[in-house]
Amino acid sequence: MADEDQVAAKERKILVAVDEGEESMYALSWCLKNIISQSSKDTLILLYAKPPRAVYSSLDGSGYLFSADIMVTMDKYSNSVAACVIDKAKRICREQADHEVKMEVKIESGDPRDVICQFADEIKADVLVLGTHGYGLIKRAFLGSVSTHCAQNVKCPVLIVKKPK
Amino acid sequence: MADEDQVAAKERKILVAVDEGEESMYALSWCLKNIISQSSKDTLILLYAKPPRAVYSSLDGSGYLFSADIMVTMDKYSNSVAACVIDKAKRICREQADHEVKMEVKIESGDPRDVICQFADEIKADVLVLGTHGYGLIKRAFLGSVSTHCAQNVKCPVLIVKKPK
Repeated sequence: MADEDQVAAKERKILVAVDEGEESMYALSWCLKNIISQSSKDTLILLYAKPPRAVYSSLDGSGYLFSADIMVTMDKYSNSVAACVIDKAKRICREQADHEVKMEVKIESGDPRDVICQFADEIKADVLVLGTHGYGLIKRAFLGSVSTHCAQNVKCPVLIVKKPK
Repeated sequence: MADEDQVAAKERKILVAVDEGEESMYALSWCLKNIISQSSKDTLILLYAKPPRAVYSSLDGSGYLFSADIMVTMDKYSNSVAACVIDKAKRICREQADHEVKMEVKIESGDPRDVICQFADEIKADVLVLGTHGYGLIKRAFLGSVSTHCAQNVKCPVLIVKKPK
């Protein structure tokens, strides 16, 4: 029975990458119901990757269209989107977890693929949980699938949760 | 508290694709420690994809090298490999699960990518667990990553477990 206690007592770091999409919120919700057990001392870490400034600039082919004012406005917008995503994720945790879950929040700027992989390895996450369409704020800005990239590059186990249609 | 009981009582089908590689056995082991909780009524389903006859034939460019005898021998070999993989997986379950786990075994012939995707959807698995190098018996016979293919094509959540180096 020593094994049982050991399993129950293990403190796992469960990293959930969240974004604006319903898919990532579904993944979070699935994780709360299926991974985080009541007996565990898990820490749930919510990670949100904010698009970096370079993304706005890349939308502007000429390099001159976006004035400094617009950049400031987009920064503000992007911060409020981040706050909104994190709020929603926290609400889901409060409402759907069947016990109190220890939670941490991290917001980083950058390509979600890099941000997620680097952070997962940095904190030595026990498992990374992702939705299937984690493309971040401006979907077209990043080519390729975030989940596929992370599954191939992150060291820890990766759980990819698809939202049923 | 109604929610708690509901979560605990839910019978989940946890499908683990196993093969000859250490990676899939590690994935099974991780799953036993992290997904299957004592309170759950989970059924663990072990799935092994046997290489189909076509794979041996494709190794034989001329189409004449492999006699019927050799084909029979390779069929026998492939059956004993399947038995060996399943035995090993069952042993891991017995030794590492902290409680008795309801278990089923399924052996199918075919490209592991198709076998796994079809079976996961067919049984409406709650989660599919995979190692990262599930290439089956003859690694070179199937191009591309099984885990990537399954993550993209299976309807249920997919957990990809990488064996630490």
